[in-house]
Amino acid sequence: MIADLPFTLAALRQAYASGVSPTQVIEEAFRRLDATNDPGIFIHTARDAALAAARELGSYDGRPLWGVPYVAKDNIDVLGMPTTAACPDFAYDATRDAFVVAQLRAAGAICLGKANLDQFATGLVGVRSPYPVPLNAVDPAIVPGGSSSGSAVAVAHGIATFSLGTDTAGSGRVPAALNSIVGLKPTLGAFSASGVVPACRTLDTISIFALNVSDAWDVFEVSAKYDPKDAYSRDFPAMGGLCSVVPTRVAVPNANTLETFGDDIQASHFHKDVKKLSELGCEVTEIDFTPFYNVAKMLYEGAWVAERVAAVGLRLTEKPETMHPTTRAILEPGLKLSAADAFNGMYRLKDLARECEFAMAGIDAICVPTIPHFVSVEDITADPIGPNSRLGTYTNFVNLLDMCGIAVPTGARSDGRPGSLTILARKGEDAMVASLAARMEDGMVGATGWDRAKPLLPSDTVGADEIGMVVCGAHMLGLPLNPELTGRGARLLRKTKTAAKYSFYALAGGPPKRPGMVAVAEGGAAIEVEVWALPKSEVGGFLAGIPSPLCLGSVELEDGTFEKGFLCESAGLVGATEITDLGSWRAFITKMAG
Amino acid sequence: MIADLPFTLAALRQAYASGVSPTQVIEEAFRRLDATNDPGIFIHTARDAALAAARELGSYDGRPLWGVPYVAKDNIDVLGMPTTAACPDFAYDATRDAFVVAQLRAAGAICLGKANLDQFATGLVGVRSPYPVPLNAVDPAIVPGGSSSGSAVAVAHGIATFSLGTDTAGSGRVPAALNSIVGLKPTLGAFSASGVVPACRTLDTISIFALNVSDAWDVFEVSAKYDPKDAYSRDFPAMGGLCSVVPTRVAVPNANTLETFGDDIQASHFHKDVKKLSELGCEVTEIDFTPFYNVAKMLYEGAWVAERVAAVGLRLTEKPETMHPTTRAILEPGLKLSAADAFNGMYRLKDLARECEFAMAGIDAICVPTIPHFVSVEDITADPIGPNSRLGTYTNFVNLLDMCGIAVPTGARSDGRPGSLTILARKGEDAMVASLAARMEDGMVGATGWDRAKPLLPSDTVGADEIGMVVCGAHMLGLPLNPELTGRGARLLRKTKTAAKYSFYALAGGPPKRPGMVAVAEGGAAIEVEVWALPKSEVGGFLAGIPSPLCLGSVELEDGTFEKGFLCESAGLVGATEITDLGSWRAFITKMAG
Repeated sequence: MIADLPFTLAALRQAYASGVSPTQVIEEAFRRLDATNDPGIFIHTARDAALAAARELGSYDGRPLWGVPYVAKDNIDVLGMPTTAACPDFAYDATRDAFVVAQLRAAGAICLGKANLDQFATGLVGVRSPYPVPLNAVDPAIVPGGSSSGSAVAVAHGIATFSLGTDTAGSGRVPAALNSIVGLKPTLGAFSASGVVPACRTLDTISIFALNVSDAWDVFEVSAKYDPKDAYSRDFPAMGGLCSVVPTRVAVPNANTLETFGDDIQASHFHKDVKKLSELGCEVTEIDFTPFYNVAKMLYEGAWVAERVAAVGLRLTEKPETMHPTTRAILEPGLKLSAADAFNGMYRLKDLARECEFAMAGIDAICVPTIPHFVSVEDITADPIGPNSRLGTYTNFVNLLDMCGIAVPTGARSDGRPGSLTILARKGEDAMVASLAARMEDGMVGATGWDRAKPLLPSDTVGADEIGMVVCGAHMLGLPLNPELTGRGARLLRKTKTAAKYSFYALAGGPPKRPGMVAVAEGGAAIEVEVWALPKSEVGGFLAGIPSPLCLGSVELEDGTFEKGFLCESAGLVGATEITDLGSWRAFITKMAG
Repeated sequence: MIADLPFTLAALRQAYASGVSPTQVIEEAFRRLDATNDPGIFIHTARDAALAAARELGSYDGRPLWGVPYVAKDNIDVLGMPTTAACPDFAYDATRDAFVVAQLRAAGAICLGKANLDQFATGLVGVRSPYPVPLNAVDPAIVPGGSSSGSAVAVAHGIATFSLGTDTAGSGRVPAALNSIVGLKPTLGAFSASGVVPACRTLDTISIFALNVSDAWDVFEVSAKYDPKDAYSRDFPAMGGLCSVVPTRVAVPNANTLETFGDDIQASHFHKDVKKLSELGCEVTEIDFTPFYNVAKMLYEGAWVAERVAAVGLRLTEKPETMHPTTRAILEPGLKLSAADAFNGMYRLKDLARECEFAMAGIDAICVPTIPHFVSVEDITADPIGPNSRLGTYTNFVNLLDMCGIAVPTGARSDGRPGSLTILARKGEDAMVASLAARMEDGMVGATGWDRAKPLLPSDTVGADEIGMVVCGAHMLGLPLNPELTGRGARLLRKTKTAAKYSFYALAGGPPKRPGMVAVAEGGAAIEVEVWALPKSEVGGFLAGIPSPLCLGSVELEDGTFEKGFLCESAGLVGATEITDLGSWRAFITKMAG
């Protein structure tokens, strides 16, 4: 039954393979939208255009997002649809797709319409819109979150597989937490901003809401393309797929600086999540979070308010009545700042960022609650600014520090409200944070009742930026030279044996004793080995430390495949002890010890 | 005779080795200063402190700048000396060394005093100082150049081995050109700004004036240290020494956009220099230089004037009479700029920088005349601003684009005035530009009459970021697989032979035919090989493409040393043809072809 079909990529692909048509999926998407009875989610619906696009798809052609419904935040241009940024006076009809929208269209995705937002993407609550405000999908008493309110709510209702938001202060993460979905905030510049209404141009990025991490990552891979026409677009090297999570050094706020504004359930849920991180093999360190909070303050108390002023231009002084009163109140102080103030603000940020660097020394990622506590519609009606600021506790500093991050549901809290944590890391580590998040995602999807897809399993294949490395001696797991691999970011793929074509020796000399493996025409055996994946960039340093007569060559494994790995020059066997019959270096050292 | 001793590092080291004392060198330095009869070079001389430091050195201890005299621009703190930035009202006594000064002190260098400058480092002419203006060392009718006027003139008189300048708009390069010395402008952040009076904090760097490129590079290596206390300091990977210049793709302004303001001699001298670049093996491309000129305009016509306002603080509004009238006139427009103007300026720069990126596609370096023409003292007296702006034609855009560069004398022009060109490249390419500049430097040193030291020869040793790679077959120079090395940035170090311990084979299979080299206990020969230096980061990709039975191991060379390189598994020799007697792969393929 299509009415029960989860719109995850995996489920959609299966449905399409079994004969469901894109037209049926689009019709179902709009049926679900109608069923919400919430006029605030979309500013513009595009039912006819979406159905037309579905019909034009023809038969399945292998494109990664073929027939996949999505929603765009209404500050992102979609050809033929109006863009309003939730300011009716600002509205225009887009005459071309935003760069990212064009990537999605080329990949076969179908846009259902334009979603509501906090006006000019300024806010984290989702209620600063002159249009009807969308209701939170899981609990209408709490705010939907913003600024990407409609984008998040649409996905949380299962109307679309994913949606585009934008994120400057946390607009791509806070609504994810409040609606129990995934919010991926890419590294700045990974997604082009061409065709996006700017909020803070140096800090803005398009973001992705999705039903699960795997889907978010697939959309990331389609969307993250270098755009020469956007000066802030960055040409990142390919990040590869979701890779296996090696034990990662993760920092969390210490007890003194974990801020939940009195919400003890949020704190205890977070502690439970952190425990799970440890169980996954992460080395968890508590750090003083003060430097990050100091950076966060810069966003609305420093020069960057003026950047929002630059974005709205003369509207603030010449047509202030066209703006939402709260948005206007937030931006007006920026009019008083001088250019020298702006530069002084940048210096201050640079100094604070350096302090954060110190705090992150030796750390791969940071884990925080996505939001410190929940804000009700009642709270924000009483005070339009304070509760909004509090929601940005764990998000405001991220773009200022050029970090990437992903918010991921971690199952219900003890009171039933959605749990969510965010994994953050330095720029370009998008694949790493998503990989770790995929191991942490848990619970129901938004308001759908769908079980969250199982986390991905670690990849056991060699990545494009890696080389397989067969080790047969002291480089194996737990043995003395293993740090030469792990210290270079290598990861163990599998334990296996060579083809039965090798002689095995303990070489003369040492300590440490070293093994020598030599291919032979006759009398060879299968030797126990480990296959590691070593980053290609590290092979040079690794090779430099390998003494004669050892070599790196091609080792045939028991399944007949070859991987690079350790071999020994035959001439180096002088004085060596043959241990082929032991079949394993571990057996040899056990025997030596015994 | 110490009076004839060039103060190059090489000559000083030789003099010290032959018994000259640092005290004698310092006394000679001040004798030379006195002989100039120019009271404008220094704002503060430190004869007693320098002599005391010389005495404290004791005997030679191997430090890289032991007993080397230098001069610091008077916007850089030196413990125990006043810092004025050429504004007497601003003066204070430095209570600690600037970070870079501390590095120099630790390396054994001796500071002679503090040099004059355009006030607050704003200017390229060297006459915007309330102190007596220094005279150009080679021709007193032309301006000394600025803002690092005294620093450049002191070196051009041979008073010091080197000096520190600063460079925001070209202050470390223009005076070098006007005084016929070397001016090295590092990548921003390579040198700490701790203890330096800011001009435009996001664009400032300390720079080095020196008698020749080799000395400038030695000082660079001592000075370029990461400073955690300067938020703009960058932790660059080690750049290595002056390496050999591989044929480099160099862009020059095309005929339509080469700007010399009617100075045809400057144009023809530049064309002569460019011809020499081609003769050195560079591939020279003419490009439209308009995008770079557009960036240059941003420096004084855009938001960055406000950054200079931020640097001088309230002085401009509260004590404007304490400032040089020209400096004041330049900064005052910055008071009117808003924070939104500042951000809009940054966006504009980002867009222009992207255009420059396009212009530099496929280009390793840019070569420009350091100055477009000469400005006389008379010119700048008549118009304090216009001629100054023109001097920045080829320098103003550089720091805004985060490029590094080095200005280097190229011998006298046909009218006897000093020729100079600047090599520019992307951030972090400091070693590359210096290497190329070392090949181009020519003519006399400043006003000293000393012959410029011979350019350095390419390094024939393996760098810290490289690994030696012995190749014996199709990877050798000119053979089919050689691009697998050169395409990875490898460079040929030498042609040599192995120790007489190897058998050599043409393996079965192919084409292409592949050689196999195997160490043997008896009957081995010396095989012709090439030793290449391959960047360590590239070894992984290189190894990945090497098929069984070839390996990378340790190859013993005829001098008894080992380098990593190609070997072959003995088991892979089945069906191979032994060619040990030929002793070389080239001999084998010649024989095959014959």
